[in-house]
Amino acid sequence: MNAKQTIHIHLISDATGETIHLLARAALGKFAATKAIEHVWTLVRTMDHLDVIKKEISDHGGVVFYSMSDPDIRAAIEQFCQQQQTPYLSILDPAVRTLSQVLGKTATARVGAQHKMDEAYFNRMEALEFAVHHDDGQAMSSVHNADILLVGVSRSSKTPTSIYLANRGYKVANYPLVPGITPPIELMKNKDVLVVGLINEARRLSQIRRNRLESMNAEENMEYADIRKINDELNQAIKLFKEQGWPIIDVSRKSIEETAAEIINIYTQWIEEKT
Amino acid sequence: MNAKQTIHIHLISDATGETIHLLARAALGKFAATKAIEHVWTLVRTMDHLDVIKKEISDHGGVVFYSMSDPDIRAAIEQFCQQQQTPYLSILDPAVRTLSQVLGKTATARVGAQHKMDEAYFNRMEALEFAVHHDDGQAMSSVHNADILLVGVSRSSKTPTSIYLANRGYKVANYPLVPGITPPIELMKNKDVLVVGLINEARRLSQIRRNRLESMNAEENMEYADIRKINDELNQAIKLFKEQGWPIIDVSRKSIEETAAEIINIYTQWIEEKT
Repeated sequence: MNAKQTIHIHLISDATGETIHLLARAALGKFAATKAIEHVWTLVRTMDHLDVIKKEISDHGGVVFYSMSDPDIRAAIEQFCQQQQTPYLSILDPAVRTLSQVLGKTATARVGAQHKMDEAYFNRMEALEFAVHHDDGQAMSSVHNADILLVGVSRSSKTPTSIYLANRGYKVANYPLVPGITPPIELMKNKDVLVVGLINEARRLSQIRRNRLESMNAEENMEYADIRKINDELNQAIKLFKEQGWPIIDVSRKSIEETAAEIINIYTQWIEEKT
Repeated sequence: MNAKQTIHIHLISDATGETIHLLARAALGKFAATKAIEHVWTLVRTMDHLDVIKKEISDHGGVVFYSMSDPDIRAAIEQFCQQQQTPYLSILDPAVRTLSQVLGKTATARVGAQHKMDEAYFNRMEALEFAVHHDDGQAMSSVHNADILLVGVSRSSKTPTSIYLANRGYKVANYPLVPGITPPIELMKNKDVLVVGLINEARRLSQIRRNRLESMNAEENMEYADIRKINDELNQAIKLFKEQGWPIIDVSRKSIEETAAEIINIYTQWIEEKT
């Protein structure tokens, strides 16, 4: 096989580099078995900064993805890549061109305008703080202020899923089901809060919990990772979810992003049905 | 002025829609004063699902951005947009083409491959849990396990910044400076933990805190929002940061993403200097 298996990828942004980074990851995901070595350059706003980057590009080669509003720095990147015969792509250009065509106006050069601190931004920040303060069954007395409440057994990815949803602007609380402890069902029942039950395969849960006990040097507490006990726990959880009519998501083979996307779909539909 | 000021934008993804959403936001940011109405469709993997979306597109028009691995659904989107004369863009294509050229191989059709649960993924999840459990001065006894410790007065955006950095894979703790309480400096001094001090303009802090008191119905506690008291607090914070030699970031006019990007730049340089 003649194809390269490792690639250096230089990501240059005059803002935070978040968009360019996600896009590069998604595009690289289409090439199985290719390993990418990422060189990430953020807040690049001067020619001096660019000089450091040029050195790296000429040392490693590869491909350059960039997002740059300043026309001079932009031209300098392109000229340098042409000299080096390094492929380059201004990642926002196709989307900006398409929008320009529909809107009937040209783009203005503004750096990092997507990070403007508007109402949506402050809502997201508020949602993040809400999620942190309502993690793991904390502050259940104000759970009625949530949009979504995630309920699940230990290690069913409640915390990261809550945070991810908060990043998308949803106010999310999460509550852990613990064997022998009755959850505060009355607090959870609220027509304005969508409750979602999370489950995970018993075998996976056992493995995750075993790793966790080892990392905590608490291996004596093996009941936590015992597969029969876990099966009991899961059956009780599912029974509760069904009794309450809460939708159930099995997170076993899903990344947090995928679980969150499913929850958002359920939430959107739930909101539509309410109105 | 003839240009449209409101645009419907349809985002269709067979995965979580995160990349496409960020990219659309960034591209829209280049058009000042344009309001976008977003229609977000995630986990689209069947023709039936597409039928619902087609209806929305024909009802509202606008522009379609999509990311779709299935060639049949993809073709159906394109054909429909052509019929409707709705501009459309497959957002990953330019990046995939560029990579294909460099790698000398064609892309494989895999859905949501960027969400694979590899080592980096589990590190991010671990970092998120670390950030939540080390928020607001909690669990300082294990702060030595952090990569970064953020220290700042109340309302200097420590929590969302910590979470954002955790999403990027950094283990971050944060500690609030409270007047009259001596911070545990000995716990914070560790050659493997980068400590960063966050400050915010007194006037802004006062405004943010006033809003917060109002939302908590705790307006009697006005000392918290008193600008002279805040100036004292800030001066003491800056004195501490300088004594300890901790880099200082003024978050006043910065979004969380921008603050985080600065911290990552400082961290990267700090790691390079250590090695």
